[in-house]
Amino acid sequence: MALLETSKYSQGSVLGSVNPDLASERQTASFSVEKLTALLDGGVEQTRIRRAVVDAIESDPVFSRENQYFQTQNERYEAAVKKAVHLQKKMHEMGWTENGPEYKYIYRALSGDVAFLLHRVFMRSISMLGSDKQIAKWIPLATQHKLIGSYAQTELGHGTYLQGLETTAVFDTATQEFILNTPKISAMKWWPGDMGRSATHTVVFAQLYVHGKCYGIHPFIVQIRSLQDHSLCPGVTAGDIGPKMNFEHIDNGYLLLKNVRIPRENMLSKFCEVRPDGTYVRQGSQKINYFTMTSVRISLIADEVLTPLMKACTIAIRYSVVRRQSKLKPGEQEAKILDYQTQQEKVLPQLAAAYAFHFTNDYLQELFNRGYREIQRKNFDMLPELHALSSGFKAMITQHCTAGVEICLRACGGHGYSLLSGLPSLYTKILASCIYEGENTILLLQTARLISSTAAKLQDLIQSGVKKHDAWNQCTVQLVQAAKAHCHYIAVKNFAETVEKLETKAGIQKIMKHLCDLFALHGIFSNTGAFLHDGYTSAAQMDMVTASYLDLLAVIRKDAVPLVDAFDFTDKSLNSALGSYDGQAYQRLYEWAQKSPTNQMSPAYERYLKPLLHNTLSKL
Amino acid sequence: MALLETSKYSQGSVLGSVNPDLASERQTASFSVEKLTALLDGGVEQTRIRRAVVDAIESDPVFSRENQYFQTQNERYEAAVKKAVHLQKKMHEMGWTENGPEYKYIYRALSGDVAFLLHRVFMRSISMLGSDKQIAKWIPLATQHKLIGSYAQTELGHGTYLQGLETTAVFDTATQEFILNTPKISAMKWWPGDMGRSATHTVVFAQLYVHGKCYGIHPFIVQIRSLQDHSLCPGVTAGDIGPKMNFEHIDNGYLLLKNVRIPRENMLSKFCEVRPDGTYVRQGSQKINYFTMTSVRISLIADEVLTPLMKACTIAIRYSVVRRQSKLKPGEQEAKILDYQTQQEKVLPQLAAAYAFHFTNDYLQELFNRGYREIQRKNFDMLPELHALSSGFKAMITQHCTAGVEICLRACGGHGYSLLSGLPSLYTKILASCIYEGENTILLLQTARLISSTAAKLQDLIQSGVKKHDAWNQCTVQLVQAAKAHCHYIAVKNFAETVEKLETKAGIQKIMKHLCDLFALHGIFSNTGAFLHDGYTSAAQMDMVTASYLDLLAVIRKDAVPLVDAFDFTDKSLNSALGSYDGQAYQRLYEWAQKSPTNQMSPAYERYLKPLLHNTLSKL
Repeated sequence: MALLETSKYSQGSVLGSVNPDLASERQTASFSVEKLTALLDGGVEQTRIRRAVVDAIESDPVFSRENQYFQTQNERYEAAVKKAVHLQKKMHEMGWTENGPEYKYIYRALSGDVAFLLHRVFMRSISMLGSDKQIAKWIPLATQHKLIGSYAQTELGHGTYLQGLETTAVFDTATQEFILNTPKISAMKWWPGDMGRSATHTVVFAQLYVHGKCYGIHPFIVQIRSLQDHSLCPGVTAGDIGPKMNFEHIDNGYLLLKNVRIPRENMLSKFCEVRPDGTYVRQGSQKINYFTMTSVRISLIADEVLTPLMKACTIAIRYSVVRRQSKLKPGEQEAKILDYQTQQEKVLPQLAAAYAFHFTNDYLQELFNRGYREIQRKNFDMLPELHALSSGFKAMITQHCTAGVEICLRACGGHGYSLLSGLPSLYTKILASCIYEGENTILLLQTARLISSTAAKLQDLIQSGVKKHDAWNQCTVQLVQAAKAHCHYIAVKNFAETVEKLETKAGIQKIMKHLCDLFALHGIFSNTGAFLHDGYTSAAQMDMVTASYLDLLAVIRKDAVPLVDAFDFTDKSLNSALGSYDGQAYQRLYEWAQKSPTNQMSPAYERYLKPLLHNTLSKL
Repeated sequence: MALLETSKYSQGSVLGSVNPDLASERQTASFSVEKLTALLDGGVEQTRIRRAVVDAIESDPVFSRENQYFQTQNERYEAAVKKAVHLQKKMHEMGWTENGPEYKYIYRALSGDVAFLLHRVFMRSISMLGSDKQIAKWIPLATQHKLIGSYAQTELGHGTYLQGLETTAVFDTATQEFILNTPKISAMKWWPGDMGRSATHTVVFAQLYVHGKCYGIHPFIVQIRSLQDHSLCPGVTAGDIGPKMNFEHIDNGYLLLKNVRIPRENMLSKFCEVRPDGTYVRQGSQKINYFTMTSVRISLIADEVLTPLMKACTIAIRYSVVRRQSKLKPGEQEAKILDYQTQQEKVLPQLAAAYAFHFTNDYLQELFNRGYREIQRKNFDMLPELHALSSGFKAMITQHCTAGVEICLRACGGHGYSLLSGLPSLYTKILASCIYEGENTILLLQTARLISSTAAKLQDLIQSGVKKHDAWNQCTVQLVQAAKAHCHYIAVKNFAETVEKLETKAGIQKIMKHLCDLFALHGIFSNTGAFLHDGYTSAAQMDMVTASYLDLLAVIRKDAVPLVDAFDFTDKSLNSALGSYDGQAYQRLYEWAQKSPTNQMSPAYERYLKPLLHNTLSKL
């Protein structure tokens, strides 16, 4: 590096001093960034607590993600286990508890890069589906990490359609045990996190048989590894399912059960119980067994879906004001790429969506908390609505946000494709959210009823002699569109209502109003056909929509950097060479690349290149 | 595994025997798969040659990709170099030459998993842009691998906008040398393949200065590493840019030049020359310097874009007939997911697009070959048209196909997300094609002129006093849409014309006609707004389009498996646990997962898990 005349980038000293192209963007904010951050957090006190958690985590070298992009799957897993164990110590040291105000910020501060996440789902299943006695036995063991739990629902051949699960649990009255089996390869449990290498126990969902009769799927606590030496228990075959697009730090696993016996007390029995004589007793809806999934589905929206989109917007927008490319006018300096309408049209609607869905998430959380309280009181009335809403919004938001992250990645050109940009791992992570906890198409169909035009088509088909099930299948493409539109409408409505309530915060209200309008207009602009089709909107009106939409891009562009600054991600949290607060994208790319293991000596030269170049290969 | 009762999946013997759910799909083909394969290849003789190349490559263990999904970036690079060196031997052994009929099938047979691809671009640049003398000197050296070449165009701060490149080449009359420099960090060469660790030489694009005057960008041959010991040459800093979403086997590199001197003869001078006294002489268009890129842009469509889409369709469609999920009718067996309209609507339009673009590619290749012959005769008339067409189609086809591969990946649910499905690497590879060789938005704008509605808006804006450049920027979102639509129209037209010519092949013509219709209707169905807006199509007509589109899905679904079989990919070439010819998806996933390095003993248990579970962590 000493070879270069311009010393400013040979010494790394430029890092930390803000790129003037980014600094200038912050001088013209139309609102207070700090106040918007507090609004997003739900108050200044929440902001303070969150920052304290982030500081504590990021200042501890064990939690560093600095080498993440250079590590193998094995190294990522080991680091994640190390972090999970260290976290227990850290929490004690900091006085954080699972019921304390700091708890919900820990996962975000770790960027999810930690093991034993399914351990929490294991505990949640027991808390929700277990009897008081079961809770009293298992929750303390889990809390003290005397065991490591997992949650084994999905099978190799069965995902969203839970009724199709094939694992069996047969009650043996003689020994008062359930006998669990994997009857064929498609029944193998596949994907559960923490199960491939870590877990000692798991909640297995299986078809319950008593006296030869099938009672449908039920949850059972099964020990799979020895607490002494971690060897697999008799009858258990388990391992890791191998490489995936992301989640290298998680040991997603497989599990085969062969005549594995567990005591009668291991069936989670808050709502359903098998008595010693084999009598099956149900209290409440069987659908309650899906409730863990409904709850997971809602809880993941913030951490697994909104956070990646917000991070991607932060990276892409900051990069778009330090990247200059081509000229808007001859003779001028090359322009910031965010000044191009085409670039604005890529990233700004994603920014608007991030804000829209942040408020949608608030709305869903509130609804869910209400429903949860009712269910604890054994009132199941809200269950169908919660299921429908969690399904539809999970599908709509994950799809929208995944597309958004991909757009941000592509909007950064070649550098977005480098892992060092941080964008590829955000994309591959959020992509998973479209798949897990219910495949999106199926979820949308669960939301898609009572919709007039397809309802008419359904009616016609049935009258013309097509059987009801065939008729439903022939309308599903349109039903999915309708369900998405319905959820989008609720999101717009909720955003607009939120904006109205901001009247005491004038500066913030104005820019939020712009974002809300952009979000709504983008929805129309992207689906003009649906609006024009029924004459709901005329062609002339659509031209106005397009004009307003494009005009708004130029307005929001001015506040784009302050709007992402308000998300308040630290550089360590973004872990992006392109998106740091100082905007020194090129310098950081160069410095990080030099740390790559691919810049160590390779045996390839001596083994292959040298004989080739020196023409000493064995005679051709 | 001996634990399981069903022995058929405990012995692996099931692999190779075709899953009955897949076998039944092949019994009802409406056309001859073998004849369609020959049509795609351009004749039975081509099919024979292609298969012979594939056989020779796949039977050689050096070229195996079996462990690909488990390897680190370093291991992938070393394997790719080994394969590239071994390929020289193989070609000699088989009697294959660079001008022989087998050559074009080698890369496909290797699935691109080989080093020195930029060496070919290095040679092509010299052949196209070099004088006869330069060709006579460098091409034999390159052919005999006495050097390894690369192609250094893109810079850290400059991609598509070539005029903005900042590397300088100053002519020194005294020594008859060019002096090359990287004046600032954004001028560093960044991304060139083979340059990070392998290349000894590269073609550097730099701004030419003679006697203080800048003549724009020109290509120069620069040696960067010693031919003796591979150490970097004086004044050269180079290395690998680190991890990316794909292309782990390629050493994409960076390059800094500090007063690197090269002889006057190293400027490629077929079209431009600097005489000893500094006189600058041009023959032909300066745009010819972009011609290498135009040529690369067209040549990559088949291998880098169509092949991944065809493979993704093969995997997703085969898996969609062996995966059963949920029930179409109560009491029936769970249905094949391809029987659901929503699944058909995901994968079948991608299949139609793969066929459509195969024929588009034939059309472009022919056009390009004609243009190339003219340019060799120094007739540059076709250059602007070739540039516009190559830009527009490259952008449209890469975008369409990338979206298609992503849809196929998602259509396989969780298993699609496993690297073992083969789909993630197809996706991350094809995604790059949207970025390299010209950012797609910019390319589309190069195609987007003379389009009436935006032309009118442009006119209005200019008349209302908006400056021409601002006006252009305010229309670009619409211009991009128009350019895409234009290219889509040509693709449909070309497909329809191709179908007409198939009248002697009745069975094939019929199914190709269906695919052509589906491709065209999908274009309308996905862009209903554009068609409804101008009253070009009425709402009633649009309902008919939708109905025909959905009906066609059910028709093409019957031939879906034979249509992907006709692409004729071997199992080794697909390298997919989900998409093999025998349809034993679950068995293969399970067997492959067991080979993963994540199933080796991990130090994590002794180091972290055991102390945690045994409660022997240092006192909390």
